[in-house]
Amino acid sequence: MGKKILIVGGVAAGASAAARLRRIDEFAEIIVFEKGEHISFANCGLPYYVGGVIEKRKRLLVQTPNAMMRRFKIDIRVFNEVVSIQPDAKEVEVQNLNTGEKYREKYDYLVLSPGASAITPPITGIDKPNVFTVRDIPDSDTIKSYIQNNNPSNATIIGGGFIGLEMAEMLHFAGLNVSVIEAAPQIMQPLDIEMAAIVNRYLISNGINLYLNSKVASFKGQEYIDTVVLENEQEINTDLIVLGMGVKPNSKLAKDANLEIGETGGILVNEYLQTSNPYIYAAGDAIQVKDFVSGYDTHIPLAGPANRQGWIVANNIVNEDIKYKGVQGTSIVKIFDMVVASTGLNEKTLKKLGIDFIACHTHPSSRATYYPGATDMSLKLLFTPDKGKILGAQIVGYDGVDKRIDVLATAIRANMTVSDLQELELSYAPPFSSAKDPVNMLGYVASNIIKNNIKIVYWDEVAEKLAQGAILLDVRTTSEVEAGTVEKSYNIPLDSLRDRIKELPSDKEILVYCQQGLRSYIANRILLQNGYNCKNISGGYRSYLPDYI
Amino acid sequence: MGKKILIVGGVAAGASAAARLRRIDEFAEIIVFEKGEHISFANCGLPYYVGGVIEKRKRLLVQTPNAMMRRFKIDIRVFNEVVSIQPDAKEVEVQNLNTGEKYREKYDYLVLSPGASAITPPITGIDKPNVFTVRDIPDSDTIKSYIQNNNPSNATIIGGGFIGLEMAEMLHFAGLNVSVIEAAPQIMQPLDIEMAAIVNRYLISNGINLYLNSKVASFKGQEYIDTVVLENEQEINTDLIVLGMGVKPNSKLAKDANLEIGETGGILVNEYLQTSNPYIYAAGDAIQVKDFVSGYDTHIPLAGPANRQGWIVANNIVNEDIKYKGVQGTSIVKIFDMVVASTGLNEKTLKKLGIDFIACHTHPSSRATYYPGATDMSLKLLFTPDKGKILGAQIVGYDGVDKRIDVLATAIRANMTVSDLQELELSYAPPFSSAKDPVNMLGYVASNIIKNNIKIVYWDEVAEKLAQGAILLDVRTTSEVEAGTVEKSYNIPLDSLRDRIKELPSDKEILVYCQQGLRSYIANRILLQNGYNCKNISGGYRSYLPDYI
Repeated sequence: MGKKILIVGGVAAGASAAARLRRIDEFAEIIVFEKGEHISFANCGLPYYVGGVIEKRKRLLVQTPNAMMRRFKIDIRVFNEVVSIQPDAKEVEVQNLNTGEKYREKYDYLVLSPGASAITPPITGIDKPNVFTVRDIPDSDTIKSYIQNNNPSNATIIGGGFIGLEMAEMLHFAGLNVSVIEAAPQIMQPLDIEMAAIVNRYLISNGINLYLNSKVASFKGQEYIDTVVLENEQEINTDLIVLGMGVKPNSKLAKDANLEIGETGGILVNEYLQTSNPYIYAAGDAIQVKDFVSGYDTHIPLAGPANRQGWIVANNIVNEDIKYKGVQGTSIVKIFDMVVASTGLNEKTLKKLGIDFIACHTHPSSRATYYPGATDMSLKLLFTPDKGKILGAQIVGYDGVDKRIDVLATAIRANMTVSDLQELELSYAPPFSSAKDPVNMLGYVASNIIKNNIKIVYWDEVAEKLAQGAILLDVRTTSEVEAGTVEKSYNIPLDSLRDRIKELPSDKEILVYCQQGLRSYIANRILLQNGYNCKNISGGYRSYLPDYI
Repeated sequence: MGKKILIVGGVAAGASAAARLRRIDEFAEIIVFEKGEHISFANCGLPYYVGGVIEKRKRLLVQTPNAMMRRFKIDIRVFNEVVSIQPDAKEVEVQNLNTGEKYREKYDYLVLSPGASAITPPITGIDKPNVFTVRDIPDSDTIKSYIQNNNPSNATIIGGGFIGLEMAEMLHFAGLNVSVIEAAPQIMQPLDIEMAAIVNRYLISNGINLYLNSKVASFKGQEYIDTVVLENEQEINTDLIVLGMGVKPNSKLAKDANLEIGETGGILVNEYLQTSNPYIYAAGDAIQVKDFVSGYDTHIPLAGPANRQGWIVANNIVNEDIKYKGVQGTSIVKIFDMVVASTGLNEKTLKKLGIDFIACHTHPSSRATYYPGATDMSLKLLFTPDKGKILGAQIVGYDGVDKRIDVLATAIRANMTVSDLQELELSYAPPFSSAKDPVNMLGYVASNIIKNNIKIVYWDEVAEKLAQGAILLDVRTTSEVEAGTVEKSYNIPLDSLRDRIKELPSDKEILVYCQQGLRSYIANRILLQNGYNCKNISGGYRSYLPDYI
């Protein structure tokens, strides 16, 4: 007789664990309990189904219970909710949600993969029928039919994260006037504020109404909410509200069974993904994990890591000791034609954790500029000041963003340094990249900083420097300067710098910038070797964002 | 007084060395000798200029001599050819090609970056005016004006490599009937034959005439070549011929100066890119390099490595000791909508070098299949049998090929194993990938092989196995089998395998396949755990190519 393994939750981690268990143990008894109707559905596709980009609902069903039962000989029980665990008896209590009947199942091993739930704010009216979350297929059905039946004009998204912005695009695409309300000073929390500002501007230029630093105070309306009132008393008319405020781990079942819960609220697991009870494993959005870069505890719900964790749990239950090495939070989102991606730690988190870092900004072209279709992108790299170990990266652009973030995510996984980035031999032909890929260029820029070939300063430090007597040098061409520059800056085009160098004061700090940072780097090298006290402004004029909007 | 540095050749490596030299040494005297008219031009863009994808000729001029002189204070002498080196006198002799005048220049350091030249076959008629190479801007001008003035109908490309195939697409795009003649049994030598076969079929389906295993015996024609005669006496009418037979390093100048030349014909350099004379460095297409994976000597002319080498040479001349760690041959080409890429070593080379390896094949989707625009790709991974260290990878597909080859190229640089590929945390949202990226999947497939969770066999081994009594098991659905299968195969759809397992002989080897390899993997796991002697056919039915065309 084989092992008896029960799995709570049949979506990403649970379905992955179940399939792997069967492949490595043909004779185990495997039961999956899923309180919803569907297993292994495409939760990341839900916004696209609501918006009509994915036309057929059945495409969201990656795996049906019947198909999975047939292929993997797994007992899948949908509409069955595990309501309690008795760890000492190695038993769970299950409720059949169709009949109300309760029953018990014994286990040799239990896998908890109950996922996470949408965060809802404690505001009166939040339970009205025109407030939606986008966590499962029934959620999507409800929004879709509401839109079809009520022909709404105005949509309000609360929360400017992944789901919020994907939904903003989809509802805009469906013809609605969309407002996004974000409590923080920026949308897209994985980004730092100067990178998020590029996205802000893009959203606004695409007709999205963006409310930053804005909290919802109350809702107005009778049967349906018709007005969102912000704390500053501003009122936004709305026909529907979508909550995109993030998720919280479903850890109550574990907590009630006296399993340990982590500080982040996720189920606590060791590196083998074992809970505080050795016969109970946990995986997916419900668990607390280690951050791969910092080693600190975190809760990052992502589909890729959930699948990986499910796979590891299966192996460890059967016969292995595979460690989960932590999550680095690699994520990406498409918003209209813009692509926003990040991996590793951002500046906000590094500061909070007290980790020393240097940041650099570049704005390369996605491919050879002479080949049609090249688009600009903005990259930010974070690395340690001593060895240049890569800590994190953020990219905002259009074409080729996913490629560069994946290369950087791989570099972080390999513990690479910025010097390693210089050496990467990436594929080059004009339709795909440049002979020096943007990732190589990041390595060159960062290495020059570490080797003290150049000193850098960030835009948010410039005002203070100027107050202390520093001067701003713009080394772009005269025509570029005429099209817009920074107040109080002095212009010497790079190609005239050697001839006009005496115009610059040798006793003041000179803060140099150009459009993107390349020409100002050359200017810095000329100035430094001529004895001037100069610094490069990271990212150049393209990173100059006086108001982050 | 600063160092005096002479650079022979001002395109990729030479221009890169010159610019870096100036940035790190403002006071060096730098002279670049370029025998042609242009420095730092977009050689990889030439086919696209010929085909009209790049419309403006000036876009090919990444840097002009005047602009570079102004910005970098470098003495650039175009139409000046270095004709000899006197290493003992630390001097070169230069000929001004405009005036014929010869003169000498002393140096402290000399950088050789003379590039490579197109290989031309020793066939009578090769010097006729309708035979073209595509190495520089004048070459492209010549072809373009020939096409405009002569309105040709038929083009013949000799050599099915990168330039050959890019030119095939471009000439087809320009309305010509294009034939590609390749002496080897396959085009695209960086690929193995079963991967090249996918490209063969695609080229043919796009109307390219493909002649494999075909050598040119002779040309016919008076003023112009009008017929290409193959060794098998087949004749091909042609109005123009493009040579795409690869390049040979321009090492004569070095050889004449008694610098050591490597076995590959490239200039011999040590890991600091220093030639056998310590005051002479060399970089780019003219040098012999170490293969990063095998450590063996090789000659791989690529733009990315050339730029990197030029940068290293500059640093090492000024004040550093940076090692060039070798070339891994990452390359990519777009042919119509198809993208073909590779990195590291292929099976042919591994066999030749006697390096043990395992190969696996997968055919994943470029992104979530439920999101519009997903395309198929075929991947081949080569890795060591013991630890699973990655040796090389090949991809043929459409969307997202460049991303996956870059991740794999990074993984090779980081000495990663197939188990590391499983763990990579790559960016996932439905428009970009799947929760398990194709690179992760490669890692899973390869790890299962290494851990003996599955045994594999390749299609080219199947015939012999069958002769020894093995049987072929097709686990696809009945309707898939009806649409085409392999002769003599037995069909049991995967989902019926457990019920019908007794139909299979327990005393014979069972070779299992499905469409892509995933269902057959599950079938293998079922069979193995039930005591059957079975193997998975790598890549499944999609890798079945009875004739490589």
